[in-house]
Amino acid sequence: MSSNVVNFAEKLSKFSEHWSPRVVAEMNDYQIKVVKIQGEFVWHDHKDTDEVFLVLKGQMGIEFRDSVVQLAEGEMYVVPKGVEHKPFAESECQVLLIEPSGVINTGEAGGELKAKNDVWV
Amino acid sequence: MSSNVVNFAEKLSKFSEHWSPRVVAEMNDYQIKVVKIQGEFVWHDHKDTDEVFLVLKGQMGIEFRDSVVQLAEGEMYVVPKGVEHKPFAESECQVLLIEPSGVINTGEAGGELKAKNDVWV
Repeated sequence: MSSNVVNFAEKLSKFSEHWSPRVVAEMNDYQIKVVKIQGEFVWHDHKDTDEVFLVLKGQMGIEFRDSVVQLAEGEMYVVPKGVEHKPFAESECQVLLIEPSGVINTGEAGGELKAKNDVWV
Repeated sequence: MSSNVVNFAEKLSKFSEHWSPRVVAEMNDYQIKVVKIQGEFVWHDHKDTDEVFLVLKGQMGIEFRDSVVQLAEGEMYVVPKGVEHKPFAESECQVLLIEPSGVINTGEAGGELKAKNDVWV
């Protein structure tokens, strides 16, 4: 019971790739992931699920077709299901993601930033 | 789309009661809550769901029947469903909770620390 404490800084120190979410914990049929982002992601949506972005360190933005959201450390945003969005970060930003198990980072958009799913750190 | 950024510090500045979770966002059929805790909670479990504790500020512990987990800022822990636990904090600790909508803070244990459900901040 006592060994499953998740320390985000420790988990984030174990990888350096951008746009490559790593699972740190599961809660029911959801996964909690950490990811390092820098630059621009691809436009995509998730047809079946909302998606939580929680900034652990740094700053990021989420572009929508009609607006842009800016997020700083200690802030979160829920992207509603089916809404096209494009995350971005000028400098490296460390982010916590909460979403159902099995969600692909690029949705159906795919492309070179599509990450392997269910990779733990 | 742009007005729903959740800033935890700002949300936490709006109330002072301990053991009284406030909803800050919903994701699918889950709620994300902030809570201030100090002292000892009651022994309880949640029969149907895991529960995420994520420490935003301060330090807390979770007592189990056979062990104790200590959590500092930037750490999280998933209490498995059905497992009896008793959160505690010597000094005030600010915590993020993730759990399905409708979960009662005391489980079936009830008592004076049972909080109103679905209270937003």
